[in-house]
Amino acid sequence: MAGISEKRIAFLVEEGYEDLECWYPKIRLEEEGAETVVASSSAGVKKSKHGYPIEANYSAMELDVDSLDGVVIPGGTGSPDKLRRDEAVTDFVAEIDSQNKMVAMICHAGWVPISAGILEGRTATSYEAIEDDMVNAGVNYKDKSVVVDANLVSSRHPGDLPDFLKAIIEKLS
Amino acid sequence: MAGISEKRIAFLVEEGYEDLECWYPKIRLEEEGAETVVASSSAGVKKSKHGYPIEANYSAMELDVDSLDGVVIPGGTGSPDKLRRDEAVTDFVAEIDSQNKMVAMICHAGWVPISAGILEGRTATSYEAIEDDMVNAGVNYKDKSVVVDANLVSSRHPGDLPDFLKAIIEKLS
Repeated sequence: MAGISEKRIAFLVEEGYEDLECWYPKIRLEEEGAETVVASSSAGVKKSKHGYPIEANYSAMELDVDSLDGVVIPGGTGSPDKLRRDEAVTDFVAEIDSQNKMVAMICHAGWVPISAGILEGRTATSYEAIEDDMVNAGVNYKDKSVVVDANLVSSRHPGDLPDFLKAIIEKLS
Repeated sequence: MAGISEKRIAFLVEEGYEDLECWYPKIRLEEEGAETVVASSSAGVKKSKHGYPIEANYSAMELDVDSLDGVVIPGGTGSPDKLRRDEAVTDFVAEIDSQNKMVAMICHAGWVPISAGILEGRTATSYEAIEDDMVNAGVNYKDKSVVVDANLVSSRHPGDLPDFLKAIIEKLS
């Protein structure tokens, strides 16, 4: 349990985030003793695809990369579609990646790292709907429950959450 | 991981179940390799408090206690309020308990074991709203994130999920 208890992980969410793709990783990392923070384009309450509220503690602009050990980006079509348009979000994701800290994404979340310009030549997966966007961004695409390429961890959909979290915890340990 | 990979756990849900109190334990146990089955008063799709659908594979009447290692009962006011009125549900919970298999409950779920008549003299917790019902049923009530009394595991609300799952996994191991 001590493995990741000192780690601090940011979650990037906007309105329409996929309920389980945010909450399962968040509670799971907390179960391991890690600290989680939630950021969005602006601080405040954001509702999931089904209306489950989450409090975003920070705007992306307020996130301090040096104080963090990685980022988890949940899917839900609307959430990454909004986040990718916020330069503070994409700058943050690019900086996390440039420091070789974990970037974990699931489902439609791949849109955010695409717009952060960090996926060319990387191996990853995503929800099938955005496979073309991933390939066009230069991704070596795999259809697997979880794909790990150095600091990049990716999964396809909520059914992959058990494998996604095993990989995330191993990556952070 | 091998600790609970042979275990088979039932979840009891009805319309209005609390999203995270069902899905976090369910995915978490699957992450550990356990098998989960979902039962309700009738088989079919049930929606959470926020509308997240889950497929109930069985009616409670179809559950075979001998093939199971325990039950998790999520909260959400509407779900246990409906479940407790189904004699097949309360008979099932009483039988699981009589075989000393795990009975795990969170939030308002305590209503179901109350109606199954298994809580007298037991130590447990619940959501604060039903503390009086728990005490009147003979519970030695504790206000703690998780309470374990032999085969009975109880927690108060979604914020307790990390502690609830640690205790459930330890109990099943």
